[in-house]
Amino acid sequence: MSGLTIDADRVGQRIERLAQIGKISDTGVCRLALSPEDREAVEVVRGWMEEAGMTVRLDGFGNLIGRLPGKDPNKPAVMLGSHIDTQPYAGRFDGIIGVIGAIEVVQTLADLGVVPEVPIEVASFCDEEGCRFNKGLFGVRGILGRLEDGELERADKNGVTRREALLAFGGDPERFEESRYELGQVSVFLELHIEQGPVLETLGRPLGIVTGISGPLWWTVDLYGFAGHAGSVPMGLRKDALVGASKIVVGLQALASSEPGAPTVGTVGSMRVFPDSRNIIPEHVQFTIDLRDIDLPRRDRLERQLRELINEVAEEHGLRVEIREDTNSEPRYCAPRIVDTIREAAMEMGLKAPELMSGPFHDSLAMSYYCDYGMIFVRCKDGISHNPKEFSSLEDIALGTELLYRTTLQMCGT
Amino acid sequence: MSGLTIDADRVGQRIERLAQIGKISDTGVCRLALSPEDREAVEVVRGWMEEAGMTVRLDGFGNLIGRLPGKDPNKPAVMLGSHIDTQPYAGRFDGIIGVIGAIEVVQTLADLGVVPEVPIEVASFCDEEGCRFNKGLFGVRGILGRLEDGELERADKNGVTRREALLAFGGDPERFEESRYELGQVSVFLELHIEQGPVLETLGRPLGIVTGISGPLWWTVDLYGFAGHAGSVPMGLRKDALVGASKIVVGLQALASSEPGAPTVGTVGSMRVFPDSRNIIPEHVQFTIDLRDIDLPRRDRLERQLRELINEVAEEHGLRVEIREDTNSEPRYCAPRIVDTIREAAMEMGLKAPELMSGPFHDSLAMSYYCDYGMIFVRCKDGISHNPKEFSSLEDIALGTELLYRTTLQMCGT
Repeated sequence: MSGLTIDADRVGQRIERLAQIGKISDTGVCRLALSPEDREAVEVVRGWMEEAGMTVRLDGFGNLIGRLPGKDPNKPAVMLGSHIDTQPYAGRFDGIIGVIGAIEVVQTLADLGVVPEVPIEVASFCDEEGCRFNKGLFGVRGILGRLEDGELERADKNGVTRREALLAFGGDPERFEESRYELGQVSVFLELHIEQGPVLETLGRPLGIVTGISGPLWWTVDLYGFAGHAGSVPMGLRKDALVGASKIVVGLQALASSEPGAPTVGTVGSMRVFPDSRNIIPEHVQFTIDLRDIDLPRRDRLERQLRELINEVAEEHGLRVEIREDTNSEPRYCAPRIVDTIREAAMEMGLKAPELMSGPFHDSLAMSYYCDYGMIFVRCKDGISHNPKEFSSLEDIALGTELLYRTTLQMCGT
Repeated sequence: MSGLTIDADRVGQRIERLAQIGKISDTGVCRLALSPEDREAVEVVRGWMEEAGMTVRLDGFGNLIGRLPGKDPNKPAVMLGSHIDTQPYAGRFDGIIGVIGAIEVVQTLADLGVVPEVPIEVASFCDEEGCRFNKGLFGVRGILGRLEDGELERADKNGVTRREALLAFGGDPERFEESRYELGQVSVFLELHIEQGPVLETLGRPLGIVTGISGPLWWTVDLYGFAGHAGSVPMGLRKDALVGASKIVVGLQALASSEPGAPTVGTVGSMRVFPDSRNIIPEHVQFTIDLRDIDLPRRDRLERQLRELINEVAEEHGLRVEIREDTNSEPRYCAPRIVDTIREAAMEMGLKAPELMSGPFHDSLAMSYYCDYGMIFVRCKDGISHNPKEFSSLEDIALGTELLYRTTLQMCGT
């Protein structure tokens, strides 16, 4: 590829190299956090970090962190990174391009003999996915002092606790304290990641600029009607919980689509019908609501409209409603100054990068409570992720890495 | 109760007596077909039949049939009846009032010294419910030569086959042939039954005249969309199978309610969502359709409209559809001459009996393929059935028995 400062071939070779560790099927990867495969990958990544001139440590939380001191090692660092652990039936890009891309940024500086004004750190965070111990963002929350009680005692399917797995991996709870970051040690966090959604592909754009990670509102809704024989209760006398639930599904879809161009998404992903018999009118339906928006006031307004809709439907069909709020996360916005910087750098590259919100979580979510952050999304085929079919082209990843490189230069004041 | 020819107290005492056999909780009954409880109940009912002057036999299919020869025993009989087996968690009225009411008709004739012109038979049919061997209307189909291959080999949850249970009960496959009815042996079948729905209660009427048993159209519908992260796929790019299914549920409800006053009913009773995860857009939804109408051309028209709706929804949301027809039963109409006779008899009693269709099946359904039939429905609290809460007042049941009595007199030409 021409016109890029970074070395696209090297990026491609490294993606290919990591994909061999825990490889499943032709294109899939299974590299669970703190597994032997994860450990093997860490050693490979460590070698690349060292090759780029960084000092590397595996901290107490299992994070692999490389550091380039820059001209003034006492200044707050610019940190780049993501993760290399995967879901059990995953692809080769999720997280990985953020780590390999970050190393490529530093290696490009080294190749060019550029010494940044401030330190640069590259983090390969431990256990972002959370599928093994059912709680993710472990390493990044660790360095920020945001772990919760009992996390080390969580066991995987084989009964291995996180403490045991962490010790075997080379981490150590005894070193947690020294691995923590003080406020001010890092000024900016940048993460390159595949989109895990279809927006960029649909728009025909290789890269996108993330405006924030939208917090989901999660409800469990129970509707209670009255069972009856499907053949003998006239339509007008029914209290059919599934008809009520269906009206709410349709209504949520309309609400979430009501503002053209808004990134609002509303989903009913899970639904159970009781007694679930073909000739009995449903008496009880339980379903979930997932409502996300980067604009919290708009999400709040939609939430109110949804509550009104649910109450109307319940009244119309004689249903009793219970709504349980399971999660109510606030959106976490990217720093406008970083979004501006990414946009300008993209324009310099001749790219028009659409701005979009991130529905899924990333290591950046935890970092957002500590420092300014920015994210670059890379187009991903059919929006598929957490699946061996996950695919982003090397061209797009290289462009994303170049954009990360140019943004980093700006953030380092170089 | 005054003004009745039949003995309401006797009817009430007999309902109470049968409710003791297989009694569960305060008001419930569990008397599975061909069980020891069913056998015990058969002996009690046999005694009442004999007390009413009938000759009684337990036939090869396990049916208990009493016969009063009348003035001309060679004429086709008027048959009355229903069943005394129950669902596992049932009440004391479903089926039972049809058998006790039929015996009461004959006993009233005997008490009054009236000998009917034609024979009267009272049938307590074996295994109407079908819950033990998962196929009902056994006894009545047996006498009509409508059993299917393999029915005797069907086993219950404990591995007991119907053949074994039938032999222990006193039935016998060797006697099937002699237990069959020739065409013309019975001219009319009359069944008194609780409504198992809320129509009569809503109308404030104790009795109803059945116009027919509506045949259900049963489908299994599969909608296939495309899964994706609930946070990252914009509304406009989704292929959400649950949104599609919900629109069909709402549309079916509207279609079935579209003709005011029509007895059409449409129900989605069962629905499964895959992968059924709160943050994944549903990729596959499977649900059932139950559409019933006593008016087959109208049901056919609604079926066409429903297919159009399903195709429109599928197209709008990019879904693939599969529709499997599981059952397509035709409505079976009551004989107009019997409906007229019941109506006139009700008017003589000063009752305005609304006409309504039956959604659920009854022994009458099988009889409809053999001779003219008529049914009288008794009001039932909240439309509840197949539940210990099932309830019809003795006043209403007595009125229904009186109407059965008067109708029988007319049908016997007495």
